[in-house]
Amino acid sequence: MKLKVVGVLAYDSITSEFGSKENIFGGSATYFAVSSSYLSNNVLITGAIGKDFNLRDLDVLSSRGINIDGVERLNQNTFKWEGKYEINSPNDAITLSNSIIKGEPNVLESYKPTLYSKNENTSEEYSLFLANADPKHQKDLIEQANKKASLIGLDTMDFWINNSPESVKELFPKVDVIIINENEAKLITNENSLRNCIEKIQDLGADRMVIKLGNYGLVYASNTTRFFLPAVLVDQVKDPTGAGDSFAGGFMGYLSTVENLSEEEFKDACIYGSVMASFCVEEFGLDRLLSLNNNEIENRKNLLINQIKY
Amino acid sequence: MKLKVVGVLAYDSITSEFGSKENIFGGSATYFAVSSSYLSNNVLITGAIGKDFNLRDLDVLSSRGINIDGVERLNQNTFKWEGKYEINSPNDAITLSNSIIKGEPNVLESYKPTLYSKNENTSEEYSLFLANADPKHQKDLIEQANKKASLIGLDTMDFWINNSPESVKELFPKVDVIIINENEAKLITNENSLRNCIEKIQDLGADRMVIKLGNYGLVYASNTTRFFLPAVLVDQVKDPTGAGDSFAGGFMGYLSTVENLSEEEFKDACIYGSVMASFCVEEFGLDRLLSLNNNEIENRKNLLINQIKY
Repeated sequence: MKLKVVGVLAYDSITSEFGSKENIFGGSATYFAVSSSYLSNNVLITGAIGKDFNLRDLDVLSSRGINIDGVERLNQNTFKWEGKYEINSPNDAITLSNSIIKGEPNVLESYKPTLYSKNENTSEEYSLFLANADPKHQKDLIEQANKKASLIGLDTMDFWINNSPESVKELFPKVDVIIINENEAKLITNENSLRNCIEKIQDLGADRMVIKLGNYGLVYASNTTRFFLPAVLVDQVKDPTGAGDSFAGGFMGYLSTVENLSEEEFKDACIYGSVMASFCVEEFGLDRLLSLNNNEIENRKNLLINQIKY
Repeated sequence: MKLKVVGVLAYDSITSEFGSKENIFGGSATYFAVSSSYLSNNVLITGAIGKDFNLRDLDVLSSRGINIDGVERLNQNTFKWEGKYEINSPNDAITLSNSIIKGEPNVLESYKPTLYSKNENTSEEYSLFLANADPKHQKDLIEQANKKASLIGLDTMDFWINNSPESVKELFPKVDVIIINENEAKLITNENSLRNCIEKIQDLGADRMVIKLGNYGLVYASNTTRFFLPAVLVDQVKDPTGAGDSFAGGFMGYLSTVENLSEEEFKDACIYGSVMASFCVEEFGLDRLLSLNNNEIENRKNLLINQIKY
């Protein structure tokens, strides 16, 4: 089944204890698309790039078999993010600046994503991932999907939870699985205990959720199941940027290939998501994700399964 | 098989977001002994109390069937600890003060633990847990055990790692399982990545280790096995004090009842340890640990197993 992601294509400048990289290709939709392309051969990316965008970066996506018909080029600049990670805090990205903070005209100011690109067959079923974005846009996309998306995954971030908590919460009953991190879960529920977070998010109408715990793994919760999965222990976390979107890419990528979704399939999706995230953090930017092969993915999957075997 | 613990009996003053308690009975050996008493009916506690000690607190131990022949009463005061936990940081105990910082004469200044109490049958086999203490004392106890202890578990803490790192490391090849927390593992190895921590601790001669990740669970590692176990999600972490020692109590308590120790038994021990720690944190001090029954323990064990089922 087709897998669509709507999100951001960006240029990132990143500093960690392992060094710095400037203006490397990233963004939520990018990480999701590259990651999911190892699980699905029918990935479509939707997002906006600017007049400064290096079109060779789109080749990176095409070379992974990703359909880029939904990428719109606008007249402002591409969105840029500058962040750093402190030693020993791989789970906390610190935003140093971005296009909005700098007041730089950027594509996100005017961009309104549309779900279908030109010439697209709109009667086909698909899975849809709504990466972190203005909840108003996310709502609009859910309405555009109009129940034709058989599985919708949703991400958000602290900025939107702080600024429009009700608009974020309103989306929860409208999607199939919420994929957020621990801090976001705590912020949206005003709870410290993970158990209470899960219950409050369920009370808000969420069917299924994954709460990502960074290098400590994740908890998956549905009405019938709770499943805890540790992260793969990697040698070095060089750059955590994109790990969450890579998780979502592996997770949704796997699910988009499965006919009948059982709880066991969601557990397997968590495993593929964790495996993809573990590769993502091993090098800066997309470097590791782009140098993968399927054997490496299967080996790491087996390693992870072996480490939770009881 | 007999299970001996050597460690501290203390009075704790604790503040968390859920309130404050002053001078409540605690200490590493106390939490270990009470926790392990649910798994073993042959627990012996060794440690020192002071002239100010309320002897009714020893009845708490006796009422759990714990042998207190190894508790020595000395002429100074009982060791005291004052600490707090910040909201959202249950894994980081902040020491506000203790008997040493205050310069108060206390029993730990002169106490030298001995492994066997009066009239004890010294030819019997036993399991031994060396709670956090001066590594010189721990070394001496290992020598006193002289290979008669069939299983030795070891804890330490940042204070000793900072002050006598070589004395701590020297103990690793002499014991069967090291039970430390993530920060201690990072401190002793000078590594940030958990994977490198495990490998370096193995290089120091450790056969087996449990690295406790607080509310994120633990990783168990031996030469053949790695096993990740999440923590039980509790409703509220009211007071994390003693959680690590309660873990060790459940872990060693279970192992002390098993004839042939396989890797599967160590995994089960991790589960019992996690279950006991999860009860410990639900109320201040020993309150929850003392109000438990075996049904509650089995139910929570099954809950945890269900949540890792893949």
